[in-house]
Amino acid sequence: MTTTASPTAATNASVSASDRSSVFHSWSAQGSLAPLPIAGGLGSTVWDVDGREYLDFSSQLVNVNIGHQHPRVVAAIQEQAARLTTVAPAHANETRAEAARLVLDRAPEGFSKVFFTNGGADANENAIRMARLVTGRDKVVSHYRSYHGNTGAAIVATGDWRRMPNEFARGHVHVFGPYLYRSEFWADSPEQESERALRHLERVIQSEGPDTIAAILLETIPGTAGILVPPPGYLSGARALADRYGILLILDEVMAGFARTGEWFAFDAFDVRPDLITFAKGVNSGYVPVGGVVISDPIAHHFDERVFPGGLTYSGHPLAAASVVATINAMAEEGVVENAKRIGADVLGPALRELSRHEVVGEVRGTGVFWAVELVADRDARTPLEAARMGSLKSDLLARGLLPFTAENRLHVVPPAVVTDEEARRGVAIIDEALAAL
Amino acid sequence: MTTTASPTAATNASVSASDRSSVFHSWSAQGSLAPLPIAGGLGSTVWDVDGREYLDFSSQLVNVNIGHQHPRVVAAIQEQAARLTTVAPAHANETRAEAARLVLDRAPEGFSKVFFTNGGADANENAIRMARLVTGRDKVVSHYRSYHGNTGAAIVATGDWRRMPNEFARGHVHVFGPYLYRSEFWADSPEQESERALRHLERVIQSEGPDTIAAILLETIPGTAGILVPPPGYLSGARALADRYGILLILDEVMAGFARTGEWFAFDAFDVRPDLITFAKGVNSGYVPVGGVVISDPIAHHFDERVFPGGLTYSGHPLAAASVVATINAMAEEGVVENAKRIGADVLGPALRELSRHEVVGEVRGTGVFWAVELVADRDARTPLEAARMGSLKSDLLARGLLPFTAENRLHVVPPAVVTDEEARRGVAIIDEALAAL
Repeated sequence: MTTTASPTAATNASVSASDRSSVFHSWSAQGSLAPLPIAGGLGSTVWDVDGREYLDFSSQLVNVNIGHQHPRVVAAIQEQAARLTTVAPAHANETRAEAARLVLDRAPEGFSKVFFTNGGADANENAIRMARLVTGRDKVVSHYRSYHGNTGAAIVATGDWRRMPNEFARGHVHVFGPYLYRSEFWADSPEQESERALRHLERVIQSEGPDTIAAILLETIPGTAGILVPPPGYLSGARALADRYGILLILDEVMAGFARTGEWFAFDAFDVRPDLITFAKGVNSGYVPVGGVVISDPIAHHFDERVFPGGLTYSGHPLAAASVVATINAMAEEGVVENAKRIGADVLGPALRELSRHEVVGEVRGTGVFWAVELVADRDARTPLEAARMGSLKSDLLARGLLPFTAENRLHVVPPAVVTDEEARRGVAIIDEALAAL
Repeated sequence: MTTTASPTAATNASVSASDRSSVFHSWSAQGSLAPLPIAGGLGSTVWDVDGREYLDFSSQLVNVNIGHQHPRVVAAIQEQAARLTTVAPAHANETRAEAARLVLDRAPEGFSKVFFTNGGADANENAIRMARLVTGRDKVVSHYRSYHGNTGAAIVATGDWRRMPNEFARGHVHVFGPYLYRSEFWADSPEQESERALRHLERVIQSEGPDTIAAILLETIPGTAGILVPPPGYLSGARALADRYGILLILDEVMAGFARTGEWFAFDAFDVRPDLITFAKGVNSGYVPVGGVVISDPIAHHFDERVFPGGLTYSGHPLAAASVVATINAMAEEGVVENAKRIGADVLGPALRELSRHEVVGEVRGTGVFWAVELVADRDARTPLEAARMGSLKSDLLARGLLPFTAENRLHVVPPAVVTDEEARRGVAIIDEALAAL
């Protein structure tokens, strides 16, 4: 029998106390934390140790796309655990090969290999490494409004504040991306924002020196930065610039991929084809840590005779692979991608747009189950809502039974892709009440 | 039911073919790979898809310390999978807190928090980050003969060839460590090697500028670099230098920790206390990807009021945590650490030392279940055995039913820490035969 330590008398208070006595948390000052003790979940619902239920409109860190504790994925993990939990990456393993094949089946023509990693950060690390080795160039261009992960290169590719205390990697250049609501380009239409953002991107490429740039690394839809759906023409324009200057295009699908936007890959909704695709989160809903790089043929072949100088102990981990196989099969057979698309178009999108009648709502944007409600103190000046009021909103949503995802002055509405119409409506109704009370 | 894709007719050939068609492998040119298809394992044995058994003297990537498919760890993963596979790091979780407590119980007094990561590389990334933030300094000193992981900072902390195509992080300085068999210091005794290596370390610190150095990062026993057991006084001397110059000491226990050396932490056998400890591999035998940093009080408290600028989606993953809890409890109750120590002292060590009668054996060194047999073409000149003959040896060992771990001109003898006396003797007998045939 197991020893996973479930004292029968556990309470929110006891679990919080154990947590505070021993666990160091991400992105936080440790002294003032009051983490919610989560004991279990099912579908779009989680519950704390005291048994209180919450509608999970965060999908944790926007990863539980297939919902909590999907029975097929849980069973696949259990069966693979019984068969073989771990194997060195140098060996071959049937489950790993099947996971790679199922990911490749979702990629465009011309992608032939998957390199598995432990998560999204090291997926981006390895994609950057491949781009540098294939092009023989150093620099990587990414957006200021972006998040690409926490490790050495990934965190410096990241544009936001999290980069600043961690700038120990070289060769990273940042540009402004399109974001019409807070345009950096004095634009007043999506078309103009797109054209001007591309002009800015090209001017930076030219000014840095095109021959020094290995890759343009973009989240297909920047996620944590605000679910910034790119305007028409931006991604295809970036692709054209990459081609013009011999630069590789890496699309980071870590948060946007595998049903989040109502597509297998978010870029499926745009006229663009990357050279490298990075993934994690939704590919197996984070049931087991995993990530990876989907590699197009010319890049894969570059390393046929040349050693690829990257690797990791848990690359292609069988337990992770089994959860990827089960997730992709379940998503395909249960229409999870289609559900996300339909919910976004027919339920979540319309309901969220109605929230614009609250004076505090500046903009609503998104697609699928990937939405941001941008909150403002002054609608005309678009002044971001103060942190204290965001904190109140967050507490109020929790008190009303909704687990929210907030970032800066935004509420990200990111339920699992299996969310039902009723749950989507109930969640937005809770947000509506909380905004009214704010 | 599951869909982990086990066509009943799978063979070595079919699994190899699927692997080659879709999986991109670590640290390799992809064109010439012939990976062994591993289907299952138990204890110190694995088998391929055709059912052929191998004595696993690699522990995969020196991680399966508790052996393959330990029933208690498998059951813990299955039970946790049924309860809750994943939760965001910002929340609290009982299993995560228990895993942290059990790791802290094995650390010296004065360590109070664990920060969980996905593996050893990002454990080192985060330890380096903490050291830089706490000291306000940039540089990290590590050994040329070292491996610290594959991500941006970890790979540049690494000293060996894998660093060279990846030097995109700044602030890394390398020194020579003690290695009497191939001394960099013209030393002829362990004591002299230790003294001179410390002198070299101090001279580099002085020459770089002590005020610029945040951390000395050392594998307690450098692993992939050759299982270089440090001579008496080296680690305590490095500690003293760190103290003298206000530098933090990070001990990388990723490969050496959790029973590999016959100790919970390899440094338990030395007179040294680090400021930060990094771990992965043996902590749960890699059954689920996980790693972490064990943080001493002053460093933990530094972040009580200051935001720690690092984090990751799968930090403190419940499935990983459950496997850590089960592994540590099983190791404690089944005497796995003691078994490794006894096997090393009474069986493996003596049997391996007898191999010195083969002219090709230059040196045998190690402890616990962590041994290197250094092979030479010329015993007096200590010329490393040629790659082609190492390749022949590796193939011959496989043909004789032993799965080996080789690195450069060395055979690393690294079976699971649960290896029995009979298996240890049988494995060394196979090596003996193969060396005779070489």
